[in-house]
Amino acid sequence: MPSQSEIKLFSSLKLKKFRQKYGLFVVEGAKTVAELVHSSMKVRHILTSHELPFDAGDISVAHISVKEMERLSSMDNPPGILAVVELPSYGAEISENSRGPVLALDGIRDPGNLGTMIRTADWYGVRDILLSEDCTDVFNPKCLHASMGSFQRVRCHYGTLKNLIPGTGLPVVGCTLHGSNIRETNLPERCVLLIGSESHGISAGLLPLLDLQITIPRFGQAESLNAAVAAAIALDHCVH
Amino acid sequence: MPSQSEIKLFSSLKLKKFRQKYGLFVVEGAKTVAELVHSSMKVRHILTSHELPFDAGDISVAHISVKEMERLSSMDNPPGILAVVELPSYGAEISENSRGPVLALDGIRDPGNLGTMIRTADWYGVRDILLSEDCTDVFNPKCLHASMGSFQRVRCHYGTLKNLIPGTGLPVVGCTLHGSNIRETNLPERCVLLIGSESHGISAGLLPLLDLQITIPRFGQAESLNAAVAAAIALDHCVH
Repeated sequence: MPSQSEIKLFSSLKLKKFRQKYGLFVVEGAKTVAELVHSSMKVRHILTSHELPFDAGDISVAHISVKEMERLSSMDNPPGILAVVELPSYGAEISENSRGPVLALDGIRDPGNLGTMIRTADWYGVRDILLSEDCTDVFNPKCLHASMGSFQRVRCHYGTLKNLIPGTGLPVVGCTLHGSNIRETNLPERCVLLIGSESHGISAGLLPLLDLQITIPRFGQAESLNAAVAAAIALDHCVH
Repeated sequence: MPSQSEIKLFSSLKLKKFRQKYGLFVVEGAKTVAELVHSSMKVRHILTSHELPFDAGDISVAHISVKEMERLSSMDNPPGILAVVELPSYGAEISENSRGPVLALDGIRDPGNLGTMIRTADWYGVRDILLSEDCTDVFNPKCLHASMGSFQRVRCHYGTLKNLIPGTGLPVVGCTLHGSNIRETNLPERCVLLIGSESHGISAGLLPLLDLQITIPRFGQAESLNAAVAAAIALDHCVH
C-alpha cells in the first residue's frame, strides 16, 4: 500500500513542475498500462482500485480505494488503473532508420491537439518529434490520453527549434498559408515537416530555415484548419 | 437588461433538452457573434459584459455583469460576448449546387471531434452533413467552439442514416479498416462520404449501403486514427 505522502506525490504529477522535479509521470487506463509493462519505459508502480486484468510481471502493484483513485486521476470517469512511470530522456539524437519525416512543432499549446498529432505521427511511422519549449508538455494527462498510447513509440525532443532543426541535417518543409499547393509539390522522402500554431503560424525566426513552403488548398470558406488536422494532411502527403 | 428569469433560461441552453424546448442556442466570442449578425441565422439577443467591438444593427444588445456572464458562459475564460440564436432547421434537403461530397457521420460522440469535422468540412467546401441520432448535438457549446464559426455555413441534418443516405441518390463511400487504399482509388467527385466512430466504426446496418470501402494506409504502429483526423484525410482525397 502506498503511504499518504506517496499518494500526495503521485497526485502532484498532474503538474509539469512536479513531473520534472520527481522525474515521473502518470498514465491511466488498463490498455495503455498493459502496453507500458512490455515497453522500454520504466514503470515504477501500478495502482489499481480493481482487479488487474493483465500480468504485471515483477512491477509492484498496489490496491487503493476508489476514493484515492479519484484523487490521483485526471479523468472525470477514472478508469481505475494507473501507472507511475519514469520520464524518458531522449537527448537530441534523431532515429537513423526512420522512414517518415521528422515532425517539428512550433508553439502547439493545446494538449488534445498535441496528443492527436503524436497519434497521427505514429500512424505514419514518424519516430521523432521536435518541439519548441512553448509547446505543451507531452506528459500532460490530456495529451497522453489523446495520444492513445502512441507517446510510447514517438520520441519527443524539446528545445530551441532554431538549433534542433538544422541539427538533423534534413531539408525543411513548412506548412504555411502562402506556399506551393501540397498536391502539386514533390516532397522529399526524408525531411523535417514544420507545423506552427493555429493562431500564430510558424514563428518568423524559423522561416529562414525553410527549404520549401507548402499549403493545403482550400475549397470552401473556413478560415483555417485545426493544427492537428493540418499536420495529419501534411503527413499524409509526405509519407510514401 | 434581461430579467433574472431570462438569464436562467439562457443558462439552461447549455443542455440539449432546453435548446430543443426553446428552439435557441448560445454562441460565445466576439468574432463568431459578429459573423452571425451578417449571416442568415436569426440572432435574438446579444449579451455583453464589455463594450461591443462591432455594430449589431437592429439586434437588441444587453449589458450584463461579469458575474452574470460567468453564469451564462460554458468557457473557463468567458470571452464576455455571447449571442442567443434561433436553432436553424434545414429539413432533409441536400444543397444542389455543392462541389464537395456530402459527409455522413455515424455515432460521433465527442463534441470537439464533431466541431473539428464541421470546420474541416467547411474548408473543403462541404455544404451538408448527415448525422445519426446518436451523434453529439452540433449546438453543444464545445462543438460550436471547435467548429470556429463553420457551423454557420455547413448544414447539419440529424436522422436515421439508413434513410437519409439513400435519399441523396449519391454513390456511398465508407472509411473502413479493410477497404481499398484511398491513394489508389478513384473517388467519385460527388458522393456521400461515411465516417464511423473510433470505437465502433461504421454500424453493421449501414455497411450494405456502401458502394465503395476505402482505407487510409498505415505506415507505423498506432492502432487507429482520431475520427476527425480520418475524416480530414478522406476529405482531402475526395475533393478536387
